[in-house]
Amino acid sequence: MEVASKPIFNTLNRPALYTDFYELTMAQGYFLSGRKDEQACFNYFFRDLPFDGGYVVFAGLGDFLEILENFRFHDDELEYLKEQGFRPEFLEYLKDFELEVSIDSVKEGEIVFPLEPVVQVRGNIIQTQLLETLLLNILNFESLIATKAARLKYAAGERKVLDFGLRRAQGFGGIQASKAAIIGGVEATSNVYSSFVHGIPASGTMAHSWIQSFDDEITAFRKYAEYYPDNCILLVDTYDTLASGVPNAITVAKELEEKGHKLQGIRLDSGDLAYFSRKARNQLDRAGLDYVKIAVSNQLDERLIKSLLGQEAPIDLFGVGTRLVTGHETPALDGVYKLTSVNNEPKLKISENVEKITLPGNKKLIRYYDDRGRFYGDGIMLKEEGTVDTIYHPYYPAKHTKVTDFESEMLLYEVMRNGELTDGVPTPGDSAKYAKQRLEKLNAEHKRFDNPHIYKIGISKKLMDLRDELAQSLKKNN
Amino acid sequence: MEVASKPIFNTLNRPALYTDFYELTMAQGYFLSGRKDEQACFNYFFRDLPFDGGYVVFAGLGDFLEILENFRFHDDELEYLKEQGFRPEFLEYLKDFELEVSIDSVKEGEIVFPLEPVVQVRGNIIQTQLLETLLLNILNFESLIATKAARLKYAAGERKVLDFGLRRAQGFGGIQASKAAIIGGVEATSNVYSSFVHGIPASGTMAHSWIQSFDDEITAFRKYAEYYPDNCILLVDTYDTLASGVPNAITVAKELEEKGHKLQGIRLDSGDLAYFSRKARNQLDRAGLDYVKIAVSNQLDERLIKSLLGQEAPIDLFGVGTRLVTGHETPALDGVYKLTSVNNEPKLKISENVEKITLPGNKKLIRYYDDRGRFYGDGIMLKEEGTVDTIYHPYYPAKHTKVTDFESEMLLYEVMRNGELTDGVPTPGDSAKYAKQRLEKLNAEHKRFDNPHIYKIGISKKLMDLRDELAQSLKKNN
Repeated sequence: MEVASKPIFNTLNRPALYTDFYELTMAQGYFLSGRKDEQACFNYFFRDLPFDGGYVVFAGLGDFLEILENFRFHDDELEYLKEQGFRPEFLEYLKDFELEVSIDSVKEGEIVFPLEPVVQVRGNIIQTQLLETLLLNILNFESLIATKAARLKYAAGERKVLDFGLRRAQGFGGIQASKAAIIGGVEATSNVYSSFVHGIPASGTMAHSWIQSFDDEITAFRKYAEYYPDNCILLVDTYDTLASGVPNAITVAKELEEKGHKLQGIRLDSGDLAYFSRKARNQLDRAGLDYVKIAVSNQLDERLIKSLLGQEAPIDLFGVGTRLVTGHETPALDGVYKLTSVNNEPKLKISENVEKITLPGNKKLIRYYDDRGRFYGDGIMLKEEGTVDTIYHPYYPAKHTKVTDFESEMLLYEVMRNGELTDGVPTPGDSAKYAKQRLEKLNAEHKRFDNPHIYKIGISKKLMDLRDELAQSLKKNN
Repeated sequence: MEVASKPIFNTLNRPALYTDFYELTMAQGYFLSGRKDEQACFNYFFRDLPFDGGYVVFAGLGDFLEILENFRFHDDELEYLKEQGFRPEFLEYLKDFELEVSIDSVKEGEIVFPLEPVVQVRGNIIQTQLLETLLLNILNFESLIATKAARLKYAAGERKVLDFGLRRAQGFGGIQASKAAIIGGVEATSNVYSSFVHGIPASGTMAHSWIQSFDDEITAFRKYAEYYPDNCILLVDTYDTLASGVPNAITVAKELEEKGHKLQGIRLDSGDLAYFSRKARNQLDRAGLDYVKIAVSNQLDERLIKSLLGQEAPIDLFGVGTRLVTGHETPALDGVYKLTSVNNEPKLKISENVEKITLPGNKKLIRYYDDRGRFYGDGIMLKEEGTVDTIYHPYYPAKHTKVTDFESEMLLYEVMRNGELTDGVPTPGDSAKYAKQRLEKLNAEHKRFDNPHIYKIGISKKLMDLRDELAQSLKKNN
């Protein structure tokens, strides 16, 4: 069911106004104060791991880069801004706006952790500021859902997980949710739009309405099997799962066998899924239909999947909806986009909450490997630094680690230079493959659901000193 | 800041494939089995109230109707479906597809309750089936957020609530979230895109980056006040709220006074908002700046707003982000779309969960008023029924209520007839006004946050009997 990649028309073909109002008032402020050519650097990072989990799968880069290709101000948008009180000279500037920023990013599908500069945007202060909301909106959400998908897939192991969430997705966010779910490891989606636009595999079974619309269940099953003899999953809980649904499915499976076809599966969508899957498996096996798969759905999440498999429920395929595409218990990743330098002068925000102090300066991000080739820890440092011997806990410098003996790898790549893509837009298929490889290198203690082990993140001495000195001097001067 | 309504280009101008895969395989099944002209009726309803609350504000009708105007299959979409294995004769049928459904709906902004047929779609079985996912995706999400907004507004009372959520919204769902927030009662949004597309008021303050980008806070404040002298809210927590932020804001306010302007407000975005708002209010008042408003933000929701006002925190404006636009503790409304009749023959789904049994038949929905003109309860009955004397609890018929003495009102309107809008698309402004009026008629016991009183919903005797007889006969025949 894999679909070839398509010429893409993303839904957000008018991204310039997809922003918070204050980005535009600040941009006008920079313009009016003659600062439009000052160079700024912003870092995208998050502070808290979603789902009380141990990691994040980074996603959204593909959509973000693709949407940037359309970043310009159209006449009707400028007219709107004029009505909002923006000044003619600034609107004239926006009219000729061409994106010239440079962007460093980890690869889509990378495993990332709190405080890390996952994306770094460099360019003039107006352009870098104007991208804030668009970047946050896309990267926060897609990373959230890719992470949820990876957790579901981790629970399901070799069993398949399908995305059934569009009907409960948060509006048009469903388009991105299904794509991000694929990046995180889900096998296919029910979402045809995302399949069409993003070239990801689509899949589906049948709804209760199909069965209700016929006079009886067996006729409904027979008709479906007639049209989809090799791709037929029968929904068995419309009237009575064990007394009617499964026996009727068995009848149809036998009829299909006579015509040289095989019933693909049955689906359970209500009741106790452990109990019913076991009973249904027995009925199917006794009828010699051990090849007929059992799919289940109904408010599933990673913990329920783990529980079902822990009970040895004979389930082959999990359809996950609401709790995949919304993130459920954590419906937002808390990623932020913070100014880290202006004209190469490092910048800092202090705030009333200590943990909200930011890391200043242009940066690089390095991953260290242990002797088994697995992720050992990550180091954040200033771009201009050479090899670093030791990384320090961001808040408790007494905790530090020597990193000289580890293999290491730079994680940030320049994906856009002066407004031009350096290496195209990552496809969901490539990003999914990359995420899978990377998750294999992440130790199990970071992947478990309860109290996962905290992954080691350190900063260089130079970065720490810069942050602390800057904080001191800002406190003094303000 | 109100914006005139615009010619709208909604983001979803290609809605035909915005659906679950099985809707299309079922549609092809209906087509191949010669049932394409059979008439079906589907009901949209939900089972559980979000946020442990007492009601839902219905929203999304405007977007849904508007998007339906674009409902047709384009060549590239048909090509995609061909690659997915759909048959030539069905694709030929889709090529000429023109929407001919009729839709009954409550007004956008109406207050609705579990089990009620909020929207009823009638038409041929293929068209009514194909709209399922699109309808659910839009109505579930926008109703969820409108409801959250109404709760925030209920907590804030006369104080203003602004939507600041786009950066943490679930991707493109943010476009709808901001519109739904306005329908639910929020005063304005930071979301420029939604303001532009939907003609809703936009608003904003400034970010930390503006302040960081200058050498010191006072210069940053002065510059902003220079460009926005009459519309200036200064963010005071970048370095030290009480030692630097508020004193600098006071200096700038005095300078503005000298030029004949007034500082609009300050914003607190970290720390204890009750403590800092009181301290800041004192500093401002002592400086003779009692007109300067205090805005706050940072992970607010309705309970925090209620708590802050309960502590008499002197706050004038609440900026709410993540917890408004995602729904936070309830990130999805569980609305479903169920087949209730085929060729006027009522249909039912039983399922393994008793509470999932549906109400059959084409319906009407009636609201009863108490003698103070407030909502007393709602009755669900069959469309063909005349006046009903008594309504019954849907599951415990021993609980019933005589309704002959109450004023009543029909809640469902035919908004689309044979594919044509009967009365245009509701605007967010009109829907917001309607929701406000309706919320005033809902008693406080249904609006409180903790254990709200359950609103009375009843069904007619005829509908109950039909449901129970149908369930019996389906159990027997399957």
